[in-house]
Amino acid sequence: MVYQTMEIPEGPDAATSTGAVPDGAATRTLAEFVAGTPVAAIPAAAIAAARAAVVDTLGVALAGLDEPPSRIAATAALAPGAAGLAPLWGRGAATSPADAAFANAVAGHALDFDDSLPSLCGHPSVPLCATGLAVAAALSRRGRPVDGTTFLAAFVAALEVAGKLSRALGHGHYGKGWHPTATLGVFSATAMACRLQGLDARTTAQAFGLAAAQSGGMVRNFGSMAKPFQAGHAARAAIVAADLAAAGMTAAEDIFDGPRGYLAAYGDGPPAPMPVPGDPWEIFVPGIYVKRWPCCYGNHRALAGIFDLVARHGIAADDVRGVAVGFLPDADKALIHRAPNDGLSAKFSIEYCAAAALVDGRVTLASFEDAAVRRPEVQALMTRVRRVPMPGEGSFSGVVGWTDVAIDTVRGRFEVRVDHTPGSPEAPMTEADRSDKFRGCVTGRLGAAGAERLFAALGRLDRMSDVAALAALMEPAP
Amino acid sequence: MVYQTMEIPEGPDAATSTGAVPDGAATRTLAEFVAGTPVAAIPAAAIAAARAAVVDTLGVALAGLDEPPSRIAATAALAPGAAGLAPLWGRGAATSPADAAFANAVAGHALDFDDSLPSLCGHPSVPLCATGLAVAAALSRRGRPVDGTTFLAAFVAALEVAGKLSRALGHGHYGKGWHPTATLGVFSATAMACRLQGLDARTTAQAFGLAAAQSGGMVRNFGSMAKPFQAGHAARAAIVAADLAAAGMTAAEDIFDGPRGYLAAYGDGPPAPMPVPGDPWEIFVPGIYVKRWPCCYGNHRALAGIFDLVARHGIAADDVRGVAVGFLPDADKALIHRAPNDGLSAKFSIEYCAAAALVDGRVTLASFEDAAVRRPEVQALMTRVRRVPMPGEGSFSGVVGWTDVAIDTVRGRFEVRVDHTPGSPEAPMTEADRSDKFRGCVTGRLGAAGAERLFAALGRLDRMSDVAALAALMEPAP
Repeated sequence: MVYQTMEIPEGPDAATSTGAVPDGAATRTLAEFVAGTPVAAIPAAAIAAARAAVVDTLGVALAGLDEPPSRIAATAALAPGAAGLAPLWGRGAATSPADAAFANAVAGHALDFDDSLPSLCGHPSVPLCATGLAVAAALSRRGRPVDGTTFLAAFVAALEVAGKLSRALGHGHYGKGWHPTATLGVFSATAMACRLQGLDARTTAQAFGLAAAQSGGMVRNFGSMAKPFQAGHAARAAIVAADLAAAGMTAAEDIFDGPRGYLAAYGDGPPAPMPVPGDPWEIFVPGIYVKRWPCCYGNHRALAGIFDLVARHGIAADDVRGVAVGFLPDADKALIHRAPNDGLSAKFSIEYCAAAALVDGRVTLASFEDAAVRRPEVQALMTRVRRVPMPGEGSFSGVVGWTDVAIDTVRGRFEVRVDHTPGSPEAPMTEADRSDKFRGCVTGRLGAAGAERLFAALGRLDRMSDVAALAALMEPAP
Repeated sequence: MVYQTMEIPEGPDAATSTGAVPDGAATRTLAEFVAGTPVAAIPAAAIAAARAAVVDTLGVALAGLDEPPSRIAATAALAPGAAGLAPLWGRGAATSPADAAFANAVAGHALDFDDSLPSLCGHPSVPLCATGLAVAAALSRRGRPVDGTTFLAAFVAALEVAGKLSRALGHGHYGKGWHPTATLGVFSATAMACRLQGLDARTTAQAFGLAAAQSGGMVRNFGSMAKPFQAGHAARAAIVAADLAAAGMTAAEDIFDGPRGYLAAYGDGPPAPMPVPGDPWEIFVPGIYVKRWPCCYGNHRALAGIFDLVARHGIAADDVRGVAVGFLPDADKALIHRAPNDGLSAKFSIEYCAAAALVDGRVTLASFEDAAVRRPEVQALMTRVRRVPMPGEGSFSGVVGWTDVAIDTVRGRFEVRVDHTPGSPEAPMTEADRSDKFRGCVTGRLGAAGAERLFAALGRLDRMSDVAALAALMEPAP
């Protein structure tokens, strides 16, 4: 599961932001922001965007439950035999909040089908949801239920933390080999846990110190089960950090700032000024990118182009003589397989994804079953997909840049340039796309009726009185 | 609890080592070494040195049980209500191996009285013992007891991992803000867990990948409870890494090597060649430094000089007109308190430590009770202790360099230069010093008879058939 490069918009955007946090004040600013921003100060549109992110995240997590790392993590999470304070999603079992957050986050990232935040260079929602719902479950059992709007407001505020830290760190963090989903995700997840528990700013700052003490995750582990493990570690570490800070474990109150601080150590060169949190909101700029198809993001613009051409010109697979996909420099670097023969490698192959899109008219989780990949008609069409290098300055990815698609058919050549990444704010998924994705992820486990019940409940998430009630809806009917 | 700078002897020593591991082979070499080195290949003197380290470590851990971070960690470790597979030392309670390793390591590092390894720039034995004994406890319950020699051989082999990695990383790791006790200690502890479980080299390499995904710990957290927390995190992460690798969670098999590998990301500049493990053994060169007195190492050479002068010249506190301590550059940087008024700050004050040594004739845990610090005769003598800067090239510490001591008395001036650090291989503690330290640490909790029983058992540790039996001896008599 290779993760593609994304450009980080560094520093505050003069057009939209009032400026940067003064040197040395990053930790205090973030802690005060997380602890002190009232729900009323968070725009309704941000709450709605967070709700959409939760829907998508719980869907892909349920879809990922049978992946090998998810099963290993769940077994490990249940092994200690802890009191069942927090549920393992969809497994009819519960364990400690830390272990539940770990196993649920592994499931959420196992398919690499979860959402992205370009400013983070990573996947923001899985650690946030896994940590937040584990904390909410434990609070509910202690008679302090977390209502839906409180939960979503915490999500929006906590998302700021990793996004703004990543802008201060700059590209060098990913470039030196760290996996921001985990290394920085732990701070958003810690913020989520602290805010839901009602910790004050000083305790939240100390929780950041304890989270920094556990911050890890390496790009080098991509392509192995350790990638989702890292998301799970971030979620577990966040629970540990928040719980121990709440219990009185002290830590540095300025962990991000100054020489030998987190930003200095985990960057490559001096950190940039950190933009002011909430100005603008990360959930608006750059916004959360939702993956429409369960494969590497490097395929997505090309897939959008293929579906567009097919729809506009009524192209049938049998008519296709060849497909040419134009990639900007590095934009196909993550697509390491040209002749895949199983589902996992097929996710990293434009040759397969293009052929499956043309043969099936859609790309779903079923497209990445081994048998689907080995179909002779698909394997034959794959050989007629060509990659065409396009000139460009810099490095591009499935999230940054554009992609050209040309399909040669018996009726002539059809071409399109795709400028926007499917699922991005510039090319958002429709409501129908989103509900289709959710049903495709969830129906296999919950059945059609169960999927609709969960989808309906998530549609009212902001009005739920106790988000812990979601867990029961994530279980198959008995 | 400030940690003093130590010099790392970088790269292999031509006089004693056959050379360096080839580029790109660090992970494989360490994994094969840990999994494949037979007990018979480990010198008897190394086993004996490991036994001494375990004695010292368990002693300081029992002494640290009542420190605030230890109590918070123990409460957190028991909160999940896990099945009692591994004991919390000295607390009559047990929990999961991961949580037990965490809480026991926090207790072990809480007083900062545990041993050091200069090549690591950190404290090696606490994460090793906490992880190793938690794994051994779980194995014992599964009918696979770990005998004493097997345990000590694993300790010696595992110590190589953090020491050799630290030499490859170089000073820049500590300099950029990481706490090697934790960041690198996790790899030694993971090696310990893997070897005790009998994992093969490939699985051990993957466990290193999972350990790297959790590697954290920052110098910035020194002076707070997060310092021992970080040792605890390393111990917990090691159990998670080894258990999940054993359960089939895959990870990179070359995590230390190459661009974006661990050594590249967590260093400051390109890594140096890694010396060959076991050639020589870290436990021989540089050897483990044992803290003789429960205060900052920056005081120790001066204390050795004071005790030496007192013994040779029969100096009484009443005869003392003044004390001058000559410090090389930076050697007293960690001694941040000149007029301390409580036990914690007194640990970082040569003024107090010198006065207490002269008044009491010894420095023990009792010397750092608040009431002891506030005694008028000690406070008066403190004002007559002066620090004298000595010229020198570079940066020195309580472990590196030398210290001059002069005591002016009614009978004249007595002077000494102390070249070797007390507790180092060049100035080792005597057997009597070591047993005195152990009794001083343990008697308060176990009583005199209990302390003797545990000390006697540890004296035969290499002949124990099941090291899990130690736990019962670490409990107060009922």
